[in-house]
Amino acid sequence: MASRDDNNIYEGPSDPQLVNRQRSKQNQGREEEEEAQLTVEQIFENKKVPSWQEQLTLRAFVVGLFLSVLFSFIVMKLNLTTGIIPSLNVSAGLLGFFFVKSWTKFLEKTGWLKQPFTRQENTVIQTCVVASSGISFSGGFGSYLYGMSETIAKQAIDFNNAQNIKNPQIGWMIGFLFVVSFIGLFSVVPLRKIMIIDFKLIYPSGTATAHLINSFHTPQGAKLARKQVKTLGKFFSFSFLWGFFQWFYTGGDNCGFESFPTFGLKAYDNRFYFDFSATYVGVGMICPHIINISVLVGSILSWGVMWPLIGNKKGVWYSSSLESSSLHGLQGYRVFISIAMILGDGLYNFVKVLSRTLISLSREVREKRNSVLPVAERNSPASPPMSFDDERRTILFLKDQIPLWFAAGGYVTIAIISIITLPHIFHPLKWYYILVIYIFAPILAFCNAYGCGLTDWSLASTYGKLAIFTIGAWAGSSHGGVLAGLAACGVMMNIVSTASDLSQDFKTGYLTLASPRSMFVSQVIGTAMGCVISPCVFWIFYKAFPDMGQSGSQYPAPYALVYRSMAMLGVEGFSSLPAHCLQLCYGFFAISIFINAIRDSVGKKWAKYIPLPMAMAIPFYIGSYFAIDMFVGTVILFVWQKLNKEKADKFGPAVASGLICGDGIWTLPSSILAIAKVNPPICMKFLSRATNIKVDAFLNS
Amino acid sequence: MASRDDNNIYEGPSDPQLVNRQRSKQNQGREEEEEAQLTVEQIFENKKVPSWQEQLTLRAFVVGLFLSVLFSFIVMKLNLTTGIIPSLNVSAGLLGFFFVKSWTKFLEKTGWLKQPFTRQENTVIQTCVVASSGISFSGGFGSYLYGMSETIAKQAIDFNNAQNIKNPQIGWMIGFLFVVSFIGLFSVVPLRKIMIIDFKLIYPSGTATAHLINSFHTPQGAKLARKQVKTLGKFFSFSFLWGFFQWFYTGGDNCGFESFPTFGLKAYDNRFYFDFSATYVGVGMICPHIINISVLVGSILSWGVMWPLIGNKKGVWYSSSLESSSLHGLQGYRVFISIAMILGDGLYNFVKVLSRTLISLSREVREKRNSVLPVAERNSPASPPMSFDDERRTILFLKDQIPLWFAAGGYVTIAIISIITLPHIFHPLKWYYILVIYIFAPILAFCNAYGCGLTDWSLASTYGKLAIFTIGAWAGSSHGGVLAGLAACGVMMNIVSTASDLSQDFKTGYLTLASPRSMFVSQVIGTAMGCVISPCVFWIFYKAFPDMGQSGSQYPAPYALVYRSMAMLGVEGFSSLPAHCLQLCYGFFAISIFINAIRDSVGKKWAKYIPLPMAMAIPFYIGSYFAIDMFVGTVILFVWQKLNKEKADKFGPAVASGLICGDGIWTLPSSILAIAKVNPPICMKFLSRATNIKVDAFLNS
Repeated sequence: MASRDDNNIYEGPSDPQLVNRQRSKQNQGREEEEEAQLTVEQIFENKKVPSWQEQLTLRAFVVGLFLSVLFSFIVMKLNLTTGIIPSLNVSAGLLGFFFVKSWTKFLEKTGWLKQPFTRQENTVIQTCVVASSGISFSGGFGSYLYGMSETIAKQAIDFNNAQNIKNPQIGWMIGFLFVVSFIGLFSVVPLRKIMIIDFKLIYPSGTATAHLINSFHTPQGAKLARKQVKTLGKFFSFSFLWGFFQWFYTGGDNCGFESFPTFGLKAYDNRFYFDFSATYVGVGMICPHIINISVLVGSILSWGVMWPLIGNKKGVWYSSSLESSSLHGLQGYRVFISIAMILGDGLYNFVKVLSRTLISLSREVREKRNSVLPVAERNSPASPPMSFDDERRTILFLKDQIPLWFAAGGYVTIAIISIITLPHIFHPLKWYYILVIYIFAPILAFCNAYGCGLTDWSLASTYGKLAIFTIGAWAGSSHGGVLAGLAACGVMMNIVSTASDLSQDFKTGYLTLASPRSMFVSQVIGTAMGCVISPCVFWIFYKAFPDMGQSGSQYPAPYALVYRSMAMLGVEGFSSLPAHCLQLCYGFFAISIFINAIRDSVGKKWAKYIPLPMAMAIPFYIGSYFAIDMFVGTVILFVWQKLNKEKADKFGPAVASGLICGDGIWTLPSSILAIAKVNPPICMKFLSRATNIKVDAFLNS
Repeated sequence: MASRDDNNIYEGPSDPQLVNRQRSKQNQGREEEEEAQLTVEQIFENKKVPSWQEQLTLRAFVVGLFLSVLFSFIVMKLNLTTGIIPSLNVSAGLLGFFFVKSWTKFLEKTGWLKQPFTRQENTVIQTCVVASSGISFSGGFGSYLYGMSETIAKQAIDFNNAQNIKNPQIGWMIGFLFVVSFIGLFSVVPLRKIMIIDFKLIYPSGTATAHLINSFHTPQGAKLARKQVKTLGKFFSFSFLWGFFQWFYTGGDNCGFESFPTFGLKAYDNRFYFDFSATYVGVGMICPHIINISVLVGSILSWGVMWPLIGNKKGVWYSSSLESSSLHGLQGYRVFISIAMILGDGLYNFVKVLSRTLISLSREVREKRNSVLPVAERNSPASPPMSFDDERRTILFLKDQIPLWFAAGGYVTIAIISIITLPHIFHPLKWYYILVIYIFAPILAFCNAYGCGLTDWSLASTYGKLAIFTIGAWAGSSHGGVLAGLAACGVMMNIVSTASDLSQDFKTGYLTLASPRSMFVSQVIGTAMGCVISPCVFWIFYKAFPDMGQSGSQYPAPYALVYRSMAMLGVEGFSSLPAHCLQLCYGFFAISIFINAIRDSVGKKWAKYIPLPMAMAIPFYIGSYFAIDMFVGTVILFVWQKLNKEKADKFGPAVASGLICGDGIWTLPSSILAIAKVNPPICMKFLSRATNIKVDAFLNS
């Protein structure tokens, strides 16, 4: 889950250092202490590293399965509400450790413990959960996959024909995921050694996770972890119960705390309110302050200034007889200006990361040519001799090899299956489109894995958008170009995203001495789990909340419309936009690139005060309520950091994870209740005083 | 304010030790430290005690006036909502210290400071505030005085004639208070030396206040006080802003957080809900745990069990055509069973305290006869020689005498004025009733001051009830007995309550070396302030909230109906009660005495687990919502004490005071808004799902 989820928040330019700094803070203190005396691997030196088969225990996969379901629910909820998904690594790590540790402790007491809990096993769990719940994101349930549905197509108005619609069905979704998800696995295997041993890439998220896992398995670290787990548990319960409590008051539309007009009814109409969501307060606590502030700035700019101004032009710029959800009206400005900013940001970062990748690569190749030393000593004579830690890690990482023929064979086999089956699922997606994608995909996957290793920044969704535009335009409007574009996006995104994710995992494995083979097996099992769990979880939401995907509903799935609109743009061009929308889009596209350029040119000191265009664009379409939730979270963390920096850094992520997980897991019973048609008993309604007088008169009559 | 407010909570048997333990905890630590090295007066030895005129500074009375207004609002709000008034001594002490200290610090910096801030001056402020805001309670605005009004009379149905009604008017209320409030002052002056020097009574509240003031004026104590003030300020702001926030959502009847059906609509109908009132959460934090639990037990017993059961007999035990507020229906059971428990409890404690008073007195008198030593050595040879502290305190306490002729003259003069004027205000109250009251009053005042010194328990309202019954019966139903009873209650209560309060103050003065003369002057000024401020504050509430006194409204003033009903019982007998109500009353009267007897017989260890009948009776009439608020407060404090006992003890009272004061002072702007007819803009309404569907259909049509 490592980088993929980050990407979604920072989908575009970000300050990945911020994230990592925050994420690895909790290890720093401990690390420093240890490093003053012993290196990490010296501490673990007399602990036996189990063989790769021993690292794959049944209990690891049971816990992995459990956590996969948990995180699939959480990621799905986030997908369908705002599309902002924070890093859940810390909570996955904490909870994985907690469950296995409790289990082994219990067995130890009964005397049945055969195998102690090692950090390698912990890495296996982490990898499994990351692979599995990552599919909830890259499966596109909140973006391209749901963008194919009738619900979204109706909102987009054009291309509202059978050729361009594919409603969700649990059968084809599982099939599709199985076909496209495994291929990424095989593409990344041969890159493994190059990225980690040869290029020594950082993979900040993977490194941070490895530090976390290593720290858990020192006695001191285990103690802190227990405390963190306790904090997480407390806030988990609070958040779950709060979700439960809120439920009782939502017996009707616009009822309950979700519709609380915190800043008055007028602000509420412009979607400015605090909706008491524990999830987004938690998200705000995990995201760096600047992200939260960017989101708030974006929401004030759009819902506070721009939309009311454009709304005044109703009847002039666009017809006043349109439905409020029509893309030809105000909604069109919201969606397309948002897309313009996202694309501008994406383009800037694509160019930036790609150029850095190419420069760095060419330097590597040049150096390699000049050098005749074996790999392990490649860095000399310029670099110092290998440290004890690096040596030990390298030996173990290279011990269990995965043969190249296996990887290449796997890739080709799956590609053939995919080329044969996918056109049967999506008729407009011709076999030769898929072939082209699979020819270019390994190169893009390599680029993405490399870029992610440098910057912690996966551009998966940007590559996906590239596929939307190219394949969509190629297919053309008369041959179901919209559906073809969206499906192509899915194929591309899955490969590219898996490549960067799994490279992160391999880095984690390298740093925790987990065998690459056990990692690979765990990834395969995790991916298989994810291919079944994610569609099922999506299916539960889909069945439980029939108004899903509607703007303003509980689960608006905002990116579904955004992705579909992009596909339409690719197929149709700009002709369908409302008046002046294109000019505004150009403007915001340029602003987005400009802000990014400024961020990169002013230096780190000032960059952290400049908002991120990507984060600003998110509320343009959805509204401001989650921006306010996140801002509350960021203020809480900020004050906490001022009061007690050490404690905030140690327990902040645990509190945030607890809030997110508790509220996220509440969606499980809540959707079961909805499916069982158990409705909340009370409606907490907000009426203006004048309306209330009318209602009271009505009720008393 | 010391004992009077406590009494209202514990009006009946209590565990005063609990209160004092809690109140003086914060001094204990410090005290013990000091006492290990130096006694209190040794620490203060080289600080000059100012003359009594110097103790009376203008700034003290300015601060006193300000705090009097603040506390009058708070006490009035409490009077009119539930009648439960916790001890506000700590907050009065803290705030008084804070204001004068800030002021003197400011002057010190500018170089204009003429006179440093002494603990004697602090005591003067405290005394002034206690005397002034105490009138908000003993003035009977929530009990006998408002019980005379038409609003209450209409609810009580019988005696609903002009002869028995006296609507509030600011003019006669101020006049009445001036006439009856000062006489208590003169009755207590001659008792002063006997109570404090001769009998060495404890006066727990007064002693605790003195410790607080002494501690403020040591350097270490001042530091703690500053921290406490900071905490108080934080929660004050929170509570004020919360009140302000809530206001926006109360645009209509049964709107806003006050009507939040926390446990569902059915529970809400039985008045079980958490009403998010910061005041009563704070009250719950100040009251001992057993009080809060008693209130909760009482509310479950009554609203959870008894009223629904009796409600089932509708049409059998009482006519089903009655209005819900009629005393001949369910409301009658609520009021009279509640009165029965209050009277049972009152009777038990009256007998108990009186017998202890008499026994103790007779012993004192016997000892005195046998002794020929001067007063200061009276305790020898059995007791050890006087300590340094006692000696110094006694000398200063006896230095500034108030002559007996002055006290007696004052008493007689005011009594004469009173006898002449009161019958003009209340026509049924004949001059000879008043004469009789004034003949017996000094004896009862003495009893009450003595009992209070022993147990911290003022029986003022019990003596008041005695007056209601005797004078009411004497006047008879045909001569406005109800009004005469209520007015007599006011005359009696003011004397008796002032006597015990001011004795507490004198004890505080004794322990802080404040001169009795400066105390007396401060009490006179404070009483005069109170006689004007309290009616004005009441008048604001009365004008701002026209439905005040109605059962179920924001300000139900529950004791007003209870007092009027008692007066009716006294005049009319039991004939008007609904079926089986008398039997139930007898039962609860007996139970009340029985529980008290058990509490006293099982010993302290077990007594603290047995609920107090008095506290149980309060929710019988009002409902359970405040019981739940208070329970929340008690749980918060309990958990806090478990987590960090020291911090909870030091800052718990400050947090609670902040919550109470902030919410209390919010009533000032809130009533101004109400008078100015500025209505809240939004109604937060709670509808059942079925009703909501209807309302939505109505609104969309």
